[in-house]
Amino acid sequence: MAAEKWVLMVTAQTPTNIAVIKYWGKRDETLILPVNDSISVTLDPDHLCTTTTVAVSPSFDQDRMWLNGKEISLGGGRYQNCLKEIRSRACDVEDTEKGIKIEKKDWQKLHLHIASFNNFPTAAGLASSAAGFACLVFSLAKLMNLKENQSQLSAIARQGSGSACRSLFGGFVKWILGKEGNGSDSLAVQLVDEEHWNDLVIIIAVVSSRQKETSSTTGMRESVETSLLLQHRAKEVVPKRIVQMEEAIQNHDFSSFAQLTCADSNQFHAVCLDTSPPIFYMNDTSHRIISYVERWNRSVGSPQVAYTFDAGPNAVLIARNRKIATELLQRLLFFFPPNSETDLNSYVLGDKSILRDAGIDGMKDIEALPLPPEINNISAQKYSGDVNYFICTRPGGGPVLLSDDSKALLNPKSGLPKEA
Amino acid sequence: MAAEKWVLMVTAQTPTNIAVIKYWGKRDETLILPVNDSISVTLDPDHLCTTTTVAVSPSFDQDRMWLNGKEISLGGGRYQNCLKEIRSRACDVEDTEKGIKIEKKDWQKLHLHIASFNNFPTAAGLASSAAGFACLVFSLAKLMNLKENQSQLSAIARQGSGSACRSLFGGFVKWILGKEGNGSDSLAVQLVDEEHWNDLVIIIAVVSSRQKETSSTTGMRESVETSLLLQHRAKEVVPKRIVQMEEAIQNHDFSSFAQLTCADSNQFHAVCLDTSPPIFYMNDTSHRIISYVERWNRSVGSPQVAYTFDAGPNAVLIARNRKIATELLQRLLFFFPPNSETDLNSYVLGDKSILRDAGIDGMKDIEALPLPPEINNISAQKYSGDVNYFICTRPGGGPVLLSDDSKALLNPKSGLPKEA
Repeated sequence: MAAEKWVLMVTAQTPTNIAVIKYWGKRDETLILPVNDSISVTLDPDHLCTTTTVAVSPSFDQDRMWLNGKEISLGGGRYQNCLKEIRSRACDVEDTEKGIKIEKKDWQKLHLHIASFNNFPTAAGLASSAAGFACLVFSLAKLMNLKENQSQLSAIARQGSGSACRSLFGGFVKWILGKEGNGSDSLAVQLVDEEHWNDLVIIIAVVSSRQKETSSTTGMRESVETSLLLQHRAKEVVPKRIVQMEEAIQNHDFSSFAQLTCADSNQFHAVCLDTSPPIFYMNDTSHRIISYVERWNRSVGSPQVAYTFDAGPNAVLIARNRKIATELLQRLLFFFPPNSETDLNSYVLGDKSILRDAGIDGMKDIEALPLPPEINNISAQKYSGDVNYFICTRPGGGPVLLSDDSKALLNPKSGLPKEA
Repeated sequence: MAAEKWVLMVTAQTPTNIAVIKYWGKRDETLILPVNDSISVTLDPDHLCTTTTVAVSPSFDQDRMWLNGKEISLGGGRYQNCLKEIRSRACDVEDTEKGIKIEKKDWQKLHLHIASFNNFPTAAGLASSAAGFACLVFSLAKLMNLKENQSQLSAIARQGSGSACRSLFGGFVKWILGKEGNGSDSLAVQLVDEEHWNDLVIIIAVVSSRQKETSSTTGMRESVETSLLLQHRAKEVVPKRIVQMEEAIQNHDFSSFAQLTCADSNQFHAVCLDTSPPIFYMNDTSHRIISYVERWNRSVGSPQVAYTFDAGPNAVLIARNRKIATELLQRLLFFFPPNSETDLNSYVLGDKSILRDAGIDGMKDIEALPLPPEINNISAQKYSGDVNYFICTRPGGGPVLLSDDSKALLNPKSGLPKEA
């Protein structure tokens, strides 16, 4: 290894994911080993993703990290575990062009700079830590030339944030709980890629909340300790649902998929309620969205839209196809119109073509939306202000390397954040 | 039996009750047989009760009933089952003073008039059907001179409304699920009378709701059919809780009592959420009340107040003693002050002496209430209008006969409602 002031960098982009069979409860807090398998759908990184640049240089005198432009501590056990696991697997790296050669043993002494950026609000409860840890592990694995495959990397990301392991793949992903005490077989596998079921359209309602939610780490621990229903769910209910869900996904069976997705989301929140003290992630707005979807599905006679809620009030709504998604967006905007001060352009984010298909170009189009036919109450109440904004998206692909240097978050000379 | 135009009447008063170990799910819909035992506390009839007058006369040409002054149909299966069961057990009755003699066999031909009145809003979700069917059965049993004891009568009331069987006794009451196919051993027994634990004070928050709730009959049926957690609760969780709850009640062990009461309420609502489609009885206001109580209990280090919610958003709060109840009422009025249009006198109902003990005489006293010390957020939000009113009450006694004719709801000459 030469003593020059070179900087070697890798930039990657990693998606977030939403579980359709939920992860709730750890059997090992340190290794982050779950009490049951889970299945997720990866969300299109065009709309929700983390970008991370990792850099190594002999000039760095400590490991440092910046999240959304602000330096954060890497001292936490979860970061330390990931860094330790990755360093222990690092291999020789040679960049002949730049004349850089790093030997396997050098990685233990070299320091890292990490910069990470979410293209969506971190605090909105949209699984930013899943995309974040997945991107950290994926980009470091590239930088350090790890030989491990994606599933083996997922087992490292898992130690940062459990659900992060599912963000190492696109499409539909299963996190297998595993049997080993050391967690080596608790990893993610891809069930199908993002092309397999590309009819699906996803609309996320970011719901306003006046409460500070219990963190999922704390919530899970309290559920494991106090809920008398959690073990029954993990042992008796989820294993059957996993089999049924895999089958539904393989067969593009939207009815089964929706039924399982909704039931499992509700059961996860039921376990939260069965916790002492009880945990409420959904609020009245979440409940209303569920009621509208249930009523619509029943009026049609088969599920058109599935809903699922993570550790917060936001609704993730999965429409069976683009036509249904258009009708869904119309319904959502009917019940939850933007405030008069809110610009439509900042109220419906992501794939705005769905808004165009819905024939909505401005407030007057929202005001003109008809009462959905399944609602027989003429005075159906509207809840302006109860949703902060919507994001239109779809199932998406897994992590990718960004070779375009302009996308890097660190300066290739200094190894410091570009904005700094 | 003489052919004169005599009217023979009985008037009785029966309390409502609130379950502390919940009844949710029937194993037999017609006989109303539950999937688990339940335990309730009877509420003081001074504040919440049903008064019923039943009358018989050879001049009546059909069975008729008036509820809160309005005639209602007795055609429903539940009324018919109760009337049939009671008539089949009727005995000879003789009123020597009035010169009336009714023989056992006459009861099959004689018609009844029934008038019933709740001293609390029927639609407020305060178990009016429990008190109502209990009072119907109790008063008819007196009129027809049934030889059955209260538990045997409770098995008849059960066929009108499951929880009605628990309103045949004061104090703490257990509804034993029973084993017999015909339901004969599915009945209520008194665990302790209302004097046993007379420190307890109960405050009910009648919560505003914009939703029409699922009826408990429909909700229970859907839970039995679709919840994968309900049977586990009924078979594995409740039997242990019943034993622990009986022990807590016997020993005046408020900590265990509160822990079990809260956990079981939450688990019942968890099962509702695990139902397809999910049932939401609690709303954001209910959740807030739980959060305040949990935080207060934790700040003290041991439970001061227990909460329980039935099939609606109303909170039933059980304070360990009068001092705590006074502090509880202060907290409730701090967070949920009345609207400026609301008169304090119609905002706190029932035992108003608790309001006096709390030093609250008018709106200015409510405005002057200090932030509860366990709330460290100075800008703690207030939710005026989210509670309709409070009722202060306590554990109370079982059914009583009202011999004072002025209390009768039917005219002793005509057998028709007095108001009519």
